[in-house]
Amino acid sequence: MTGTRGTTVGELGERALLARILEVLEGSSTAEVGPGDDAAVLIVPGGRVVLSTDTLVHGPDFRLAWSSGFDLGWKAAAVNLADIAAMGARPTALLLALALPDATTAGFVDDLAAGLRAACDELAPGCAIEGGDLTASDTLTLAVTAVGVLEGEPVLRSGARPGDIVAVAGELGAAARGLDVLFRRFRGDTGAPAPVDAASLSADEVADLAAQLRPRPPIALGARAAEGGATAMMDVSDGLLLDATRMADASGLTIDVTAALGDVALRGGEDHALLACFPPYVMLPAGFREIGRALPRGGAAVLVAGRPATGALGWDPHRDWDAGRG
Amino acid sequence: MTGTRGTTVGELGERALLARILEVLEGSSTAEVGPGDDAAVLIVPGGRVVLSTDTLVHGPDFRLAWSSGFDLGWKAAAVNLADIAAMGARPTALLLALALPDATTAGFVDDLAAGLRAACDELAPGCAIEGGDLTASDTLTLAVTAVGVLEGEPVLRSGARPGDIVAVAGELGAAARGLDVLFRRFRGDTGAPAPVDAASLSADEVADLAAQLRPRPPIALGARAAEGGATAMMDVSDGLLLDATRMADASGLTIDVTAALGDVALRGGEDHALLACFPPYVMLPAGFREIGRALPRGGAAVLVAGRPATGALGWDPHRDWDAGRG
Repeated sequence: MTGTRGTTVGELGERALLARILEVLEGSSTAEVGPGDDAAVLIVPGGRVVLSTDTLVHGPDFRLAWSSGFDLGWKAAAVNLADIAAMGARPTALLLALALPDATTAGFVDDLAAGLRAACDELAPGCAIEGGDLTASDTLTLAVTAVGVLEGEPVLRSGARPGDIVAVAGELGAAARGLDVLFRRFRGDTGAPAPVDAASLSADEVADLAAQLRPRPPIALGARAAEGGATAMMDVSDGLLLDATRMADASGLTIDVTAALGDVALRGGEDHALLACFPPYVMLPAGFREIGRALPRGGAAVLVAGRPATGALGWDPHRDWDAGRG
Repeated sequence: MTGTRGTTVGELGERALLARILEVLEGSSTAEVGPGDDAAVLIVPGGRVVLSTDTLVHGPDFRLAWSSGFDLGWKAAAVNLADIAAMGARPTALLLALALPDATTAGFVDDLAAGLRAACDELAPGCAIEGGDLTASDTLTLAVTAVGVLEGEPVLRSGARPGDIVAVAGELGAAARGLDVLFRRFRGDTGAPAPVDAASLSADEVADLAAQLRPRPPIALGARAAEGGATAMMDVSDGLLLDATRMADASGLTIDVTAALGDVALRGGEDHALLACFPPYVMLPAGFREIGRALPRGGAAVLVAGRPATGALGWDPHRDWDAGRG
C-alpha cells in the first residue's frame, strides 16, 4: 500500500479507495454486520441506542496546512465520541461519511482512517468504525455519526436542579489557545495557513496545539458521571458560557460559574470537555472538578461570579467563520 | 416565517437556523430523546439496530438549478431509507448533517426540511428526523444517517444461493433517464444547468424526472422481502449490473439477468430499487418481479441472458464525475 500513497482519489476510484479504508479498519469491528453491506447491524443491550452526528468541513473546521489526515480522523472521532459520552452513554460504533476532492491522495485517506481508528482505540476502547459512505466533493468533509449504549437513563441537559454543583471534566481553553497559536504563528504572507514548525513552540504551546488538533475528551467519564448521579450533562463544544447558557435554559435555571477560569476557558470553543450538574450531597466522580452552582432562574441564564456574562459567549460557525481568513 | 425566506444562513446564525428546522420537524419525533440534546436516544425493540449513512454533495449528486430544496431533502431521505429497507429492516429515524454555504437562503433550508419530513411520512411512516448537525461549508452537503429496526435476521448481500430466483422491486432506469433529460434539455449555452421548463416535457419525461429528483424506493417492501424468505438483498444505487456483481461476489456465485430490461435499466444508477434473491420454492412477495437466476459461480460474476456483461456496469462517483460539466 505504501507505494501508492501519492495516487489520487480520482485515479483510484471508489472501489479501490474503499478497499484501502477497510484494510485500515479491519479486525476492529465488533458489530453483527460491519462495513461492506447496505447498512451496519449492531447489538444494543438494554434496548436503547444513543445517536449523534457531527461534521468537520475544510475551511470552517480545519485547514489542511495545519491538520494531517491522522489529526483529522482523530478529531472527527473524538468530537463525536464526546456527544455520546455527554448523554452518559458508552460509544460502541462510528459511521463515516467522507466527501473527498478528486486530488486527495490515497495516503491522506489512509492516515485519516488510521486517526479515526486510533482515537476509538484510545478514547473509547471497543468502539469501531462500522460503516460509511464515500462521495466526491469540492470541499473535503467528514460527517461522522456516533452510536452508544446506555446502562441506565440518559443524562439530558434539561435535568439540572437549583442547588446542584456545576462541574467540568476535561480541559477548558486549551483548544482555543491552540487555534490562536495557529492563526498567530503559522500563516504565510497572504494570511493563508502555513505548515507548523513544532521546533519553534514552547511545551505549553505544543500541548495547546495537540488539544486543538487531536483533542482527548474524557469519554469514559460520561458513563461514570451517569452512574455517579449526574442530573444534567453536555459536551462543551462552543464555549463554556454558551453551552452553560443552553443547559441553564433547558433546565429552567441559572448557572453561576464561580471558579476563576479566565476568559479563554470561559469562551473558547472546541474543548469537548463534559459539563455536568450533580446534587449537592454526592461526591463528584474522579475527574470532575466543581466550577459553580445551579441557582433558581434569575434574569440571566449564566452568571460569572454572580454577574451576568456579557459579550460573545462562544462560537457560531455561520456567524464567526470568515472564508477569507485562511 | 414566510417573511424571512430570503434571509441568508450567514445572516441568521446557527441558533435561529436550527430553530427554523426544528419548527418544520416538530411533532414528528417518536424518539425517547429527539432533536435538541447532544444525542438522540431511540428505543430499539429486538435489541438490534440497523445503521447506514449516505451523502448528497452539490456538484456530483445534485445541481441547484435542477433540484429544489424540497427535492433535495426528499432524495436525501429516500436514498437513506432504501439502505435500511435493503437489510430487511423498518426505518425509524434519520439524523441530518447539513453543511451550508452562508449565502443559502432560509427558505431553501425550510423547503429542505419539509422535503425530508414529507419523504419520511410517505415512504416510511413513523420515521422522523431525530437529530443532526449544522456547519458552514463552501459546498452544500447533506449527510444523512438512517436508523432501522429488525423483526428477524438482517438480509445480507452475501446470502444468495445457486438456484435462487433473482428479483427486483421498484423502478429500473427511470432515474438515469431523468438525469439524461436534465443534461440534454436543461443546460445553458455554457453547459451550465438551467431551470427545468416542465411544460416542454412529455408525460414519460415528467415521470423520469420525478424518479431522478424525488425517487420513491419501495421502502416497505424491504421488511416484506425479509418476512417472505429473501436470502440476499441490496439497494440498487449504482446500476443493476454493478450492484448485482457486488451481490454475486459477496455470495460467491454468478447472477444471470435473463429479463429483457434494456441498457438504461441494466446500467443506470440512482434508482434505489431493491434487488433480492429468493429460494425457488417461495412465492415472490407482491411488488417483486423475477429478473433472473443465481447460478453456481462461473467465470463472470454477472451474465446478461447467459453472456458475460461487458463495458461500464454502473456508476463510480470519483471516476464518473466531471466537475466541469455542470
